[in-house]
Amino acid sequence: MFIVPVDADISLELLEEQHEGELFALVDANRDYLRQWLPWLDQNTEVEHTRSFIRSALERFAARDGFTCGLRHKGALAGVVGLHRVDWPSRRSSLGYWLAEPHQGKGLMTRACAGLLDCAFGEMGLNRVELHCAVENRRSCAIPERLGFTREGVLRSHEWLYDHFVDMVAYAMLAGDWSRLGSGGPG
Amino acid sequence: MFIVPVDADISLELLEEQHEGELFALVDANRDYLRQWLPWLDQNTEVEHTRSFIRSALERFAARDGFTCGLRHKGALAGVVGLHRVDWPSRRSSLGYWLAEPHQGKGLMTRACAGLLDCAFGEMGLNRVELHCAVENRRSCAIPERLGFTREGVLRSHEWLYDHFVDMVAYAMLAGDWSRLGSGGPG
Amino acid sequence: MFIVPVDADISLELLEEQHEGELFALVDANRDYLRQWLPWLDQNTEVEHTRSFIRSALERFAARDGFTCGLRHKGALAGVVGLHRVDWPSRRSSLGYWLAEPHQGKGLMTRACAGLLDCAFGEMGLNRVELHCAVENRRSCAIPERLGFTREGVLRSHEWLYDHFVDMVAYAMLAGDWSRLGSGGPG
Amino acid sequence: MFIVPVDADISLELLEEQHEGELFALVDANRDYLRQWLPWLDQNTEVEHTRSFIRSALERFAARDGFTCGLRHKGALAGVVGLHRVDWPSRRSSLGYWLAEPHQGKGLMTRACAGLLDCAFGEMGLNRVELHCAVENRRSCAIPERLGFTREGVLRSHEWLYDHFVDMVAYAMLAGDWSRLGSGGPG
Amino acid sequence: MFIVPVDADISLELLEEQHEGELFALVDANRDYLRQWLPWLDQNTEVEHTRSFIRSALERFAARDGFTCGLRHKGALAGVVGLHRVDWPSRRSSLGYWLAEPHQGKGLMTRACAGLLDCAFGEMGLNRVELHCAVENRRSCAIPERLGFTREGVLRSHEWLYDHFVDMVAYAMLAGDWSRLGSGGPG
Amino acid sequence: MFIVPVDADISLELLEEQHEGELFALVDANRDYLRQWLPWLDQNTEVEHTRSFIRSALERFAARDGFTCGLRHKGALAGVVGLHRVDWPSRRSSLGYWLAEPHQGKGLMTRACAGLLDCAFGEMGLNRVELHCAVENRRSCAIPERLGFTREGVLRSHEWLYDHFVDMVAYAMLAGDWSRLGSGGPG
Repeated sequence: MFIVPVDADISLELLEEQHEGELFALVDANRDYLRQWLPWLDQNTEVEHTRSFIRSALERFAARDGFTCGLRHKGALAGVVGLHRVDWPSRRSSLGYWLAEPHQGKGLMTRACAGLLDCAFGEMGLNRVELHCAVENRRSCAIPERLGFTREGVLRSHEWLYDHFVDMVAYAMLAGDWSRLGSGGPG
Repeated sequence: MFIVPVDADISLELLEEQHEGELFALVDANRDYLRQWLPWLDQNTEVEHTRSFIRSALERFAARDGFTCGLRHKGALAGVVGLHRVDWPSRRSSLGYWLAEPHQGKGLMTRACAGLLDCAFGEMGLNRVELHCAVENRRSCAIPERLGFTREGVLRSHEWLYDHFVDMVAYAMLAGDWSRLGSGGPG
Repeated sequence: MFIVPVDADISLELLEEQHEGELFALVDANRDYLRQWLPWLDQNTEVEHTRSFIRSALERFAARDGFTCGLRHKGALAGVVGLHRVDWPSRRSSLGYWLAEPHQGKGLMTRACAGLLDCAFGEMGLNRVELHCAVENRRSCAIPERLGFTREGVLRSHEWLYDHFVDMVAYAMLAGDWSRLGSGGPG
Repeated sequence: MFIVPVDADISLELLEEQHEGELFALVDANRDYLRQWLPWLDQNTEVEHTRSFIRSALERFAARDGFTCGLRHKGALAGVVGLHRVDWPSRRSSLGYWLAEPHQGKGLMTRACAGLLDCAFGEMGLNRVELHCAVENRRSCAIPERLGFTREGVLRSHEWLYDHFVDMVAYAMLAGDWSRLGSGGPG
Repeated sequence: MFIVPVDADISLELLEEQHEGELFALVDANRDYLRQWLPWLDQNTEVEHTRSFIRSALERFAARDGFTCGLRHKGALAGVVGLHRVDWPSRRSSLGYWLAEPHQGKGLMTRACAGLLDCAFGEMGLNRVELHCAVENRRSCAIPERLGFTREGVLRSHEWLYDHFVDMVAYAMLAGDWSRLGSGGPG
Repeated sequence: MFIVPVDADISLELLEEQHEGELFALVDANRDYLRQWLPWLDQNTEVEHTRSFIRSALERFAARDGFTCGLRHKGALAGVVGLHRVDWPSRRSSLGYWLAEPHQGKGLMTRACAGLLDCAFGEMGLNRVELHCAVENRRSCAIPERLGFTREGVLRSHEWLYDHFVDMVAYAMLAGDWSRLGSGGPG
């Protein structure tokens, strides 16, 4: 219902409870695919789990601590993207996303993230947006690299993924970088 | 940031804390005008009051109990419109709005309400939207009448306005009426 | 334990947890009868549900947002009556009640409501008490009519009752009316 | 509004916010007298303090953790009496009270406590009611002694009273004692 | 992790969630023994109950309302000891403890309580520490008597123990007594 | 009161409200020194601010989300050290500290951190402890380097310090590293 329009085909829609069925169905249909890099699949096995996730995301939004959106492509829900935890004194937040398998390969998430960064550095006035991708998740790493994020280091054993620890690349974009790159990314 | 696009010029933007300065300035510049029919002007005399209003509106949104938007016309904040308290078992809510004086007379709020009703009866699945206008506030009453609301009665002494009670007309629109009228109102 | 004495036979007793068994038994024995006009019977099927109802009613009482009483006739619990949601700035609230079938036809609820209105317009200082009855619930409508409430309109499809929407008559009594009618109702 | 009727002249009225002015005035007019044995006079110097006291007492009532009443004699507020903290597993609570100076010497509090004990051992089903009086507060000690409480010991330095510690007599009444004494006390 | 060192062999360790397994195992292995004098054994039958107990104890600690420690003897968890509910205006609290059967008879709890009293009257600045032991629980009563507590009275039917009420001896230690006895108890 | 003993001279004491005066005095005496690298000095100008800091630290401790200790050297409070925000699924947390100027240069904080890491990787079972130091704060950077932390990258403009952004070095220690280095650090 409430959207950030990104371009003719893509919008970021604030997730509300009425989306719980649609979102759970997307997760459920991509369970094996998402399980490769996301740690929460075994905690999301019923639509009630998706409802709790949406509720707590809205509570964080109301507390001015980020937001969680559905990525819609031509009306269809394709994935989730958001900012988690905002450090207002240092005007810094952290970006996260996932895209369902059938929607891969079209640059949707790159365009969605560019739209989100316009909001983050524009209306929200943030100075720094961080992003952590698993070192071996080449698809996910390609997004910040295409957008011009700086690779700042590798965080060893940063996330537990079912049965092993994963090293994460720490990327970051600064407001000044984004504005130099020109709104909408490096094209 | 998060909007319901209504038409080429108008959108409904979910109010967030970053709008507090803009909204307070609008209230402050229209204080005498708004005071004629709105009871809360003397409780909103500093930007902190506007911040509290926005916060509690976002908390209600997160609790699935309505939402509060700024009406933007060509980018400028012109007024506020929202749904307050949703009775989900009976799928019923209550509409409220105000428009600053310089934005009057262009049909902005009528178009905004039509957009909001499309959401209410569409995505939200409500069955009934109520609206109370002071009997003598002809400008405000004109909006539901133009949109095709039914006048269901007059609620005597319903609201305290600084130094006297005001009678309110009770209007309501049902989902079936709205769909018969055609989305976007009676034209 | 804590009562508003109404007359020699009737009192309004603030519901506390120790009444849960007695209240649930009354609901359970009148389930089919109450189901005709009350929407919550299928959500009250165990004594724990009655306990939750009493707890949340007491929390609203502590928050100065109305109260919920048992109607006692010669010591026996006969029904429930209360004020829900108080709008203190406009000094307005809403009356609700139900009476078990075996206690019908003796004017008990009319006398109980008269006692409650004495409190509402007296000690509480309210200016307006509203009451909604289903259009076709003649028994319930007879009470506000006997007490001298004004019929202000009909609210279409106002309440969902298991499988259909119900139209409600909107009644209201103002403090000035009540005092003109003479305490205790129109007799 | 909500009372426990004790006898023709005395009732215990659950304190609500509308009593704040009346209660604060009583405290204020008896400040020096009450300060002899009550430790909270310097924390109750404005009507807002009385309001907070009433609110938190109602919250405890809603949480089933006791109640706080005004003692009314022929309609006038004469003092405060209540049960504080209920240990439900052991069915035990603690009685407390104070009476304004002009109402002393008529046995009002003794009768009020007898009424309260009838509720405590009757409807509430408690097994033990405790009462602590300062050893040298003869007037206060006379009440449990007249009512037939057992003196169980002396608690040394139990309460801080502005500039010194006070020893308290620990009294207790058991349900069995009260029923043997006959409802209404030994009188 | 966080301890009050008492002597070479004994320390009091603030209970945290990581101790839940160890604590539940100790309770479970001493269930029949502890059931003689403690009322909560039937509410602690799974490790989740122990976790809830630890959580609520930590919340009270964070609210400055006492603390709950494990008694460790040569590293092994032997029992629990703590202060419950602190009345800061009167600088008074209440001591409670239990020791598993295999650890009885070595004076461990007496030494632990002496260490705890040093903290209570020293760093915490309390003036009075109370202790209630069942009259017939000779082992438990021996501890305050050995430490020099004063026996102030007997509280009849003070605690419900599964199927009967128990009389409790009320003991108390004042800061002045403790300092006269010499830190570490009467030796 | 509750400590982690580190060595003969140093302990980590869980901060409680009774330490507010001592802690505020230490901050106040080192205000200019601490202001070089810590961003919160202007939000801590009265002892009430220190009290709020301690309270919220204890609430996080009770919620199992880290802890905050005073570093005591021969009984004197010398600084603060703690773990902030624990990610339990990934068993990861973040270390933070400051030391007052007169206590610098003796290796106190290095020893304190070694003790804390023993707890973190031992009893708490963490797998990764992160630490961020401003690039130009050589004194602070020396500590993780002496302890054997790995330097994983530089986070640009990570923290707002009154009037400019500061770049931070990201250090991390893994459980496996710590155990290979030998408990107590690289010596």
